[in-house]
Amino acid sequence: MKIIIAPDSFKGSLSAVEAAAAIGKGVHKAFSDAETVLLPIGDGGEGTMKTLVAATGGKLKQLSVTGPLGNTIEAAYGVLGDGKTCVIEMAAASGLHLVPDGKLAPLKTTTFGTGELIRQALDDGFSSFIVGLGGSATNDGGAGMLQALGLRICNNGGEEIGPGGGELQKASGLDFTNFDERISRSRFVIASDVENPLIGPNGASHIFGPQKGASPEDVELLDRSLTNWADRILEATGMELHNRPGAGAAGGTGGAFQAFFPAELKRGIDVVLDYTGLDGHLQEADLVITGEGKVDRQTAFGKTALGVAQRANRSNVPTIILAGSVGKGTDVLHEHGVVSIHSIINSPMALQEAMQNAAELLEDSAEQIVRTYFHRYTM
Amino acid sequence: MKIIIAPDSFKGSLSAVEAAAAIGKGVHKAFSDAETVLLPIGDGGEGTMKTLVAATGGKLKQLSVTGPLGNTIEAAYGVLGDGKTCVIEMAAASGLHLVPDGKLAPLKTTTFGTGELIRQALDDGFSSFIVGLGGSATNDGGAGMLQALGLRICNNGGEEIGPGGGELQKASGLDFTNFDERISRSRFVIASDVENPLIGPNGASHIFGPQKGASPEDVELLDRSLTNWADRILEATGMELHNRPGAGAAGGTGGAFQAFFPAELKRGIDVVLDYTGLDGHLQEADLVITGEGKVDRQTAFGKTALGVAQRANRSNVPTIILAGSVGKGTDVLHEHGVVSIHSIINSPMALQEAMQNAAELLEDSAEQIVRTYFHRYTM
Repeated sequence: MKIIIAPDSFKGSLSAVEAAAAIGKGVHKAFSDAETVLLPIGDGGEGTMKTLVAATGGKLKQLSVTGPLGNTIEAAYGVLGDGKTCVIEMAAASGLHLVPDGKLAPLKTTTFGTGELIRQALDDGFSSFIVGLGGSATNDGGAGMLQALGLRICNNGGEEIGPGGGELQKASGLDFTNFDERISRSRFVIASDVENPLIGPNGASHIFGPQKGASPEDVELLDRSLTNWADRILEATGMELHNRPGAGAAGGTGGAFQAFFPAELKRGIDVVLDYTGLDGHLQEADLVITGEGKVDRQTAFGKTALGVAQRANRSNVPTIILAGSVGKGTDVLHEHGVVSIHSIINSPMALQEAMQNAAELLEDSAEQIVRTYFHRYTM
Repeated sequence: MKIIIAPDSFKGSLSAVEAAAAIGKGVHKAFSDAETVLLPIGDGGEGTMKTLVAATGGKLKQLSVTGPLGNTIEAAYGVLGDGKTCVIEMAAASGLHLVPDGKLAPLKTTTFGTGELIRQALDDGFSSFIVGLGGSATNDGGAGMLQALGLRICNNGGEEIGPGGGELQKASGLDFTNFDERISRSRFVIASDVENPLIGPNGASHIFGPQKGASPEDVELLDRSLTNWADRILEATGMELHNRPGAGAAGGTGGAFQAFFPAELKRGIDVVLDYTGLDGHLQEADLVITGEGKVDRQTAFGKTALGVAQRANRSNVPTIILAGSVGKGTDVLHEHGVVSIHSIINSPMALQEAMQNAAELLEDSAEQIVRTYFHRYTM
């Protein structure tokens, strides 16, 4: 009996690593000789890359970089268990969680620190990168990141523009003289679930600006700035980011990767599943158990449980989903090789109680579910 | 695929009949061609007999009888689907629920109405009886029931004593002249989970008297009265009820059945399982699904889920339990052929919400569980 245990985090209560451990314990309570493979999975959003590093037995490297507001912060990049792939989470250096309440400044926040993480990793010899774009506090079109990597962005007086999306309206010319040449010899896989274009009503500023603190006036200014930025990029590189899908991810950083990097954009969950080696582990597996805090209609449109199930289904391995909360509209999951979906809640209880006891609840329900699924082993 | 669906009620939300229907719906959502047998099960306590009548496709007969306080009430006896077995629930004529709040009168309450139900059923031609003892308001040693069936209980002046346990201290002689002779030609199966003796510190008055409204002084008086009653029965029949296990059930009515009836005392759940025909249905069944509102350590000591599982296990059919609330200490159930135990709760929620949505929750969880158990059918 070989069981792949590939859960997401249970937000607010268990990390994906903790969730996988709890499920594993439950499985072994039911069948002490079961072979289990623990593959904690992030959904591609913020926190995913840390999970990926942990899942592959990798490590983190800490360094000081420039935070979104310009102050110095501690951040880290990760190295996967293969020792060769560098993992960078944009939120680590340029994340919304780094901006204190009341200090949101979408015109000012910069991706400079993300560029510094990349530069340090290049210095450390890495040429294969995964970059997760979720959770940024920025709307600077990736300009700060590019500046950290040597690009000069000048105003019409020939002087370098300052940090933040608000400055991009002044961008007049790009100078590639000192742009880090190692970038073109590297490979960047960009994990992003955002399909939005760079500008316009569905662009970065209109859709994501408000949650980064932009007022209606800020949104208009930012959108005009990014339009100017896209015009300059078109002149310099020949690439038209304006309406390009995905260019609006992370305040336009998705576009910067497309224009200036040898980059491949992928769904976050696909990146995660590629690098955790799920496909390989699925060989001769009998069952996949995945899970996340909440499974509902949304899950059928791109989150962890569905992503895992689709991969498993391709290898003809069935999947069972365990969730803190099971909503309506999950029937569609059965079409993707999902055998069944179960809540870990064992009694009427408040959310807080469920979250406090999540590990035990998950362990117990995993035990009962594998007893049900593999009942013939016991008879 | 043949599935026996044999749940108890989910107290406060679903009757056993409703619970079985909900589980059946869920099973058919998963496998539309599944063969299901619905056998709603009572646990042997109050309400069980009604469930048994419904489960076997039987009917109820309404009549007017004497209530526990002496007023006239409407009550019913049941007839199982076989048309031959009469089912009497003591609580129907002599139950605690028939005594209004504040009117509890354990010295006065009488089992006379239960005797009238039996008499009417005898008049209607029945000779095979099941009597459920749960939920009585009485502490009269079954004297009222016996009087309704023709026994004369006299004081030392030769006059018949009045109703209620308080009168039994005056009982001086028993006159069987008019005691219904059809009783000795009938068969009575008495469903009772109470093992208590008639008198003493573990007897009917001390253990169950207080919940029927007896003050400490009442308890002493009732215990002395039942002692006198047991002495008279010993003289008249040779049977010593004083310390006899089960004689203390239903305020001593358990003892009356033992002394005056051709009666067999059985665990309530065993009576129910015998008469629902579970054993026959288990032939060629693949799975039994049972359930109840709460499954915990207590369940391992005699309630529905365990009773069903034990029977199923004897026929080598595995059982799955669905419950509103799954507590600790259920591991022991696995020793009795229980594959697994699952809560129907699909999210953190309050008890009231769970109870309001119990049918849907039960249906959904049954669907997911049979999908899990019979997954090979879908592949």
